[in-house]
Amino acid sequence: MDKHLAVIQIEENVRQENNQVACEVRDIFKKHEIYAVNLISSPGSGKTTLLVETLKSLKGLIPCAVIEGDQQTSNDAQRIAETGVPVVQVNTLQSCHLNALQIKKSLEYLPVDKIRLLLIENVGNLVCPASMDLGENEKIVLMSVTEGEDKPSKYPLAFLNSQLLILTKVDLLPYLRFDKELCEINARKINSNLEIIETCSYTREGISAWIDYLLLKAGSNSL
Amino acid sequence: MDKHLAVIQIEENVRQENNQVACEVRDIFKKHEIYAVNLISSPGSGKTTLLVETLKSLKGLIPCAVIEGDQQTSNDAQRIAETGVPVVQVNTLQSCHLNALQIKKSLEYLPVDKIRLLLIENVGNLVCPASMDLGENEKIVLMSVTEGEDKPSKYPLAFLNSQLLILTKVDLLPYLRFDKELCEINARKINSNLEIIETCSYTREGISAWIDYLLLKAGSNSL
Repeated sequence: MDKHLAVIQIEENVRQENNQVACEVRDIFKKHEIYAVNLISSPGSGKTTLLVETLKSLKGLIPCAVIEGDQQTSNDAQRIAETGVPVVQVNTLQSCHLNALQIKKSLEYLPVDKIRLLLIENVGNLVCPASMDLGENEKIVLMSVTEGEDKPSKYPLAFLNSQLLILTKVDLLPYLRFDKELCEINARKINSNLEIIETCSYTREGISAWIDYLLLKAGSNSL
Repeated sequence: MDKHLAVIQIEENVRQENNQVACEVRDIFKKHEIYAVNLISSPGSGKTTLLVETLKSLKGLIPCAVIEGDQQTSNDAQRIAETGVPVVQVNTLQSCHLNALQIKKSLEYLPVDKIRLLLIENVGNLVCPASMDLGENEKIVLMSVTEGEDKPSKYPLAFLNSQLLILTKVDLLPYLRFDKELCEINARKINSNLEIIETCSYTREGISAWIDYLLLKAGSNSL
């Protein structure tokens, strides 16, 4: 086997091993009736700020937990912890995405019997997290309206493999040359079933639609 | 050797092979007196828009060329081509960064005898491009002020391995809760030598400082 083929084979093996662990994670979620969402976006799209607002809104409605993926720092986990929701921080160091084994190990630190909704915040990256199975029930892609309407075309897998697109920071629309309709057309060219919710964490625009979405999904899981 | 060690060994081999090719690329740059910069950022930070403005400003001052890295599409290369500057598009497909072999092959399509400044736009990703040597003279990290002042701490390698940070979209500062001073402190905690230029491609704020930076670097290379 030549060297190039050997590298492809090893990458395939790594992916297969990840998928096996993802199946185990999926079984844990099923057993404990946990609905798990995997949030994917560029760095700085506003995932953590939305997450904090989400957890405040879900308080008393459904028991949640969070797994925070970051290359470095535990800043985001600290922001989440202030909401009182159980959180595990995973630092991926050289790696640009979470993997299923990190999720499996994180679950050992969470009260899985009590959780109904698990929100996984992946490392800020629109490429690799899109094709990595963590055992989640669904992937959700976020993009800020400051990023430009071409992102679905340029990073198609993230939009293809997600069930929902959350457009963030819509309060900035008046100050941007951002064609929202074109962005939505671009996104639905990649994935015609993609749902879209427009949000702003500061003005709370769209937050109730997002909360309804989560409760519907996590609720239906437990029937 | 256990499986985990084998994977680490293969990754190390891939990196070593890349570094060998990067040395060859560096020799090509030296031979042809080309100064090469590798632009790294999140998706949507405004790399291509800045690049188009940069090429317009450099017209008649120094012969340029561009290598465009994207996971998919040749939209960006088309935007660059409209400026009349030679450009090669590399689609990385599953990969989240450019590698040295892609640069070496791209150079076959560029008039290397006539170029003095090569601008490489990497795939939008703050993680993996930061530690991948393309044979460039320097890495330059861009971040939009919409991304939040914590990005240097969360993605330290991109800031550690760059000589310059370009803060983009500063026209949006009045509408954001962005602490510019804190961002600069965070960046210089990672890399105390990091130069910083604030820009807006639409208002052209900071563009002349950025052009002077490039001309100084590319000029000194040819002495």
